Amino acid sequence: MKTINIIGSGNVAHHLVWAFAGLSNYKIQNVAVRSLDKVTDFFPKNLIVSTIEDLKPANITLISVTDSAIAEVSEKIPYTNSLVVHTSGTTALEILNDKNRKGVFYPLQTFSKSKEINFKEVPLCLEAEIVDDLIELKLLAKELSHNVFEISSAQRKSLHVAAVFVSNFTNHLYSIGNEICKENNIPFDILKPLIKETADKINYLNPKDAQTGPAIRFDQKTIKTHQDFLQNQNHKTIYNLITQSIQENV
Amino acid sequence: MKTINIIGSGNVAHHLVWAFAGLSNYKIQNVAVRSLDKVTDFFPKNLIVSTIEDLKPANITLISVTDSAIAEVSEKIPYTNSLVVHTSGTTALEILNDKNRKGVFYPLQTFSKSKEINFKEVPLCLEAEIVDDLIELKLLAKELSHNVFEISSAQRKSLHVAAVFVSNFTNHLYSIGNEICKENNIPFDILKPLIKETADKINYLNPKDAQTGPAIRFDQKTIKTHQDFLQNQNHKTIYNLITQSIQENV
Repeated sequence: MKTINIIGSGNVAHHLVWAFAGLSNYKIQNVAVRSLDKVTDFFPKNLIVSTIEDLKPANITLISVTDSAIAEVSEKIPYTNSLVVHTSGTTALEILNDKNRKGVFYPLQTFSKSKEINFKEVPLCLEAEIVDDLIELKLLAKELSHNVFEISSAQRKSLHVAAVFVSNFTNHLYSIGNEICKENNIPFDILKPLIKETADKINYLNPKDAQTGPAIRFDQKTIKTHQDFLQNQNHKTIYNLITQSIQENV
Repeated sequence: MKTINIIGSGNVAHHLVWAFAGLSNYKIQNVAVRSLDKVTDFFPKNLIVSTIEDLKPANITLISVTDSAIAEVSEKIPYTNSLVVHTSGTTALEILNDKNRKGVFYPLQTFSKSKEINFKEVPLCLEAEIVDDLIELKLLAKELSHNVFEISSAQRKSLHVAAVFVSNFTNHLYSIGNEICKENNIPFDILKPLIKETADKINYLNPKDAQTGPAIRFDQKTIKTHQDFLQNQNHKTIYNLITQSIQENV
């Protein structure tokens, strides 16, 4: 039975603890959290330590804290020559402290504590300095997910940017759609089949081929109607910019 | 058995013909198409007429052509006092010619000819000038879909704008994600579980509560890394604008 330490209590740490708890060949040894306030009910209370220095050595240590704290946290780990990985999309592997062997275990998904997730579908992007550690990470990753990839720090960085566009920014567009509905007394639910289909479509068509709407049709009359309709200056600016971007990239 | 005429051969007309063909209480009488080039194989060839003036009268006539042609097309219909509806999100009911009774039958979905769709889930937004016609449209709509709504012209206009944000613009963000992947030799498939989860999440959380990523965390260091990474000026402008919009609307 291999042992795992997790450092952090944010959205990613929350889902990692949940996912690891279901494995038979691995056990969580400790979870280091700065404050018990952020810990949800299902966290294994008996395993929690409140300072990193109290962690007992484990086969793999996952650092799942805010990017800017990764270096400092990795330095505080009280053991050496063990495999320590971070879970960040943007942070280079090298930032981890030299006293342990370095790796990355980046789950490419949007995590919210209140939304359960099928971890089997989460793409896990792995990186390690030495082959044996990469094998170790792959063994663990394959127990959790069907989607395991070896991704370099440079690729991961670009992947993270792409993820921001297709997920964070997309969700913000949902938010704007929701606002427009609210302002006009229309239930947001009417838009949900459209949102679902738009996401599903790219499993069958390249996004460029899947593009529909007034912008790609160069339907300037409809675009003008929409521009006149939008009173919120921020919504209007986004409307104009993305419309232009669609039309310039046909 | 009630009869239906369809005018048009675009994406919406294509899926309407497909959906109506499966109904037992309605039959398609004619489909008027300007050019046979745009007609896909499954179109019922024996029902096709090439000029609107050749249409035989039907209980309901659906005009599914480009918005700017709706008025002209409705004028050419060779019969009167029948129910004529258009399928446009942005066009007012009034634009239809006075010689027939007017209505709207707006399917709120993204349609591409090469992607099949479950029509049962498509929200159908209905409008009519007189109650009997609204009832007639509801009868038809409920045979096709579980999601039938009565929506005024003003509401429909705002709904269409919201749809552009959550669907057309979202798809463009997928396109940008795809481009970034291609430029960095990463398969776009890695992003698909994330896209799926982002769309699914709003069935459980309000989009504002579902927001994740560096912008909402005010993680300026990661944002700076992304800005430096993006060489495509258009991608960078969109990145900056939506990041700012997320941060200003917390």
